[in-house]
Amino acid sequence: MSKKGVLAVISGFSGAGKGTIVKELIKRYPEYALSVSMTTRDPRPGEEHGREYFFVSDEEFEKLIEEDGLIEHAGYCKHYYGTPRKFVDDCMQQGRDVILEIEMQGALQVRKMFPDALLLFVTPPTATELEKRLRGRNTESEEVIKARLSRAYEETEYIPEYDYLLVNDDLDKCVEMTHTIIRNAHEEISRNGEFLKDIKTQLEVYK
Amino acid sequence: MSKKGVLAVISGFSGAGKGTIVKELIKRYPEYALSVSMTTRDPRPGEEHGREYFFVSDEEFEKLIEEDGLIEHAGYCKHYYGTPRKFVDDCMQQGRDVILEIEMQGALQVRKMFPDALLLFVTPPTATELEKRLRGRNTESEEVIKARLSRAYEETEYIPEYDYLLVNDDLDKCVEMTHTIIRNAHEEISRNGEFLKDIKTQLEVYK
Repeated sequence: MSKKGVLAVISGFSGAGKGTIVKELIKRYPEYALSVSMTTRDPRPGEEHGREYFFVSDEEFEKLIEEDGLIEHAGYCKHYYGTPRKFVDDCMQQGRDVILEIEMQGALQVRKMFPDALLLFVTPPTATELEKRLRGRNTESEEVIKARLSRAYEETEYIPEYDYLLVNDDLDKCVEMTHTIIRNAHEEISRNGEFLKDIKTQLEVYK
Repeated sequence: MSKKGVLAVISGFSGAGKGTIVKELIKRYPEYALSVSMTTRDPRPGEEHGREYFFVSDEEFEKLIEEDGLIEHAGYCKHYYGTPRKFVDDCMQQGRDVILEIEMQGALQVRKMFPDALLLFVTPPTATELEKRLRGRNTESEEVIKARLSRAYEETEYIPEYDYLLVNDDLDKCVEMTHTIIRNAHEEISRNGEFLKDIKTQLEVYK
């Protein structure tokens, strides 16, 4: 209904599988606009500028912060990460729904700037399952795994700021649910003020 | 996720097609529990006690009001209409989603008693289309049609109290949207307090 696109923010515990959900969502529904984050860290082998991230210098990033060109940003392990504003604004104006896959800290910043953003949080069904998935990657040290689990505990505090909780125990179901949640958001009363104003005007002749 | 059923209230302009949507929804998804209203008016030919309505006497209805046995009720054309509480409570406790097809006045009463009820309002795409559908029925006098359109105008005032606006220009799409809106409501953060408490407790060992 509403002409403006929905800004959908997807976060989740590290290891919950949000990356896989987002990748599959975009594959099935290419009409979504996936926002690409900007970072000052170096590209890893195989990563491409503009696909995984926009790789920029500290100076470029800081200039963008000053110009209010990012809708959220955070420092992590001595590097900046952020979401360029222009792409998000342009897509929403064109009526395209935008997907941001970002950390909780950034999501809460987005919420402040875009109160009607749709915030989704991905979690595995249990903490045991989360630990299992983190260990199953076989790529991280014990220390890193423990840090991720400890961070997950801290994040539980702010999950209530989100709109929806996606329990990822079935990828296919989770992707379809993500899609219908975003699609149906267009029908929320709060996004249909224009339509309501119009139909009220049309009905005025009958009052 | 959440064990408790969702209470979904469906209202709409007279002539918007909410009855058809609800009928089709129940046919496709018989897991929904359709609440049957109670009335003091006489049954019309073909109507069955417990199917279209529970037909009761004024005394029975008033006794139920006194006992707080109705979650909403209203008078209309010298007759009472209302929703028995027991069926709704029982189904929700069993985890079944309950569908109420009721007028706006009742819907707003339900909202007060059940703040997390899901309120959906059905509208045709335009006022012209609404008038066309009302006239297309060929069963009502000019006076009745005008009264319905005038009432539609008055109702626009309170539509913002609803959660979702369903523009009924395609029955099939509208039914699917109604279904996914109700199903996805289970994933709202506010309905998952129990899950969040549990996973926080499970994660506590890692903090």
